[in-house]
Amino acid sequence: MTDNSKALPLVELSEQFARLPGIGMKSAERLAYHVMNMSDNEVRAFADALVKARTEIHCCNVCQNLTDKELCPICSDPKRDNSIICVVESPKDITAFERTREYKGSYHVLHGLISPIDNITPDKLKIKELLARVNDETEEVIMATNPTVEGEATAMYISKLIKPLGVKVTRLAFGMPVGGTLEYTDEVTLYKALENRNEI
Amino acid sequence: MTDNSKALPLVELSEQFARLPGIGMKSAERLAYHVMNMSDNEVRAFADALVKARTEIHCCNVCQNLTDKELCPICSDPKRDNSIICVVESPKDITAFERTREYKGSYHVLHGLISPIDNITPDKLKIKELLARVNDETEEVIMATNPTVEGEATAMYISKLIKPLGVKVTRLAFGMPVGGTLEYTDEVTLYKALENRNEI
Repeated sequence: MTDNSKALPLVELSEQFARLPGIGMKSAERLAYHVMNMSDNEVRAFADALVKARTEIHCCNVCQNLTDKELCPICSDPKRDNSIICVVESPKDITAFERTREYKGSYHVLHGLISPIDNITPDKLKIKELLARVNDETEEVIMATNPTVEGEATAMYISKLIKPLGVKVTRLAFGMPVGGTLEYTDEVTLYKALENRNEI
Repeated sequence: MTDNSKALPLVELSEQFARLPGIGMKSAERLAYHVMNMSDNEVRAFADALVKARTEIHCCNVCQNLTDKELCPICSDPKRDNSIICVVESPKDITAFERTREYKGSYHVLHGLISPIDNITPDKLKIKELLARVNDETEEVIMATNPTVEGEATAMYISKLIKPLGVKVTRLAFGMPVGGTLEYTDEVTLYKALENRNEI
């Protein structure tokens, strides 16, 4: 339906917002109208942030995390332990681990998971870059992909490539989430929690 | 919390997204990461749409609807009946009326509602512009503000200014929403529906 009541630049902006994930046409319109109430400077700052993020950010030469430098802040931090590599699906996952403030090793971002149904084969992920990093100084590779079918498959695939190099490969523990209740825990998680029970 | 794992331009972009209404820090981050997966051209088109919408769009000289021309498409349409003016709170409301495909009159956008608690006094709305439009050819002014306290107050305030000019002022009908059920209709709406009952 063409809506003649609206100015074209506003329709275009709504459509741009609607292309973002999780934003429907209705929300997109609301956002576009919000932009009309922003100051010129605010809008320009937003537009600049978009272009700047896209043009200045690329993958870290070592760990493939997103960065605006040659090396990401974690790879260039001399205090981090490079003998441990935590392999994750996306840069967002690094943020989650950093929030724990406990992990002091390095990361490796795969930028996806193996998923033949979506035509994502191992060669489309940053697996060669990971193998190139694993050397005599590497003590452990932690497979920290999500506990989904794709996450498990990717963890298995990579572990089979790394184990022959004589490096320990580990997987995140599965179990009850802290603060969770038995009643609302799904049976697979509960089975994992039982299987991996620890002596107290 | 400063998160050193993320590149600065990405943090900035997340913050820009988080300033939009209805987008929290978590969604903003997700959107920023999505931008990383867009092509350069797509990002530039988005940034351009933002700036273009902000710089090219202003209020229609007559009805105060948002437009990129001197007159909005409705005011410049010779088929529209300018003797009827439908007064609405925001440009979004025009879209809602146009969707009915029934209304053929003109509009007037107030760009807000009188709300002393938010420091929105009548002089901050486009009321003088409305009064300047009302002339001998005007037959009816429809007060189509929302049925809220502010919407009612604004409708009453404006009707008191226009009635002395000898112009008919009407208000949208309130009643049961089409497809609604008595069980889930609030008592005020039900009272209005009863009060405004029509013979069949």
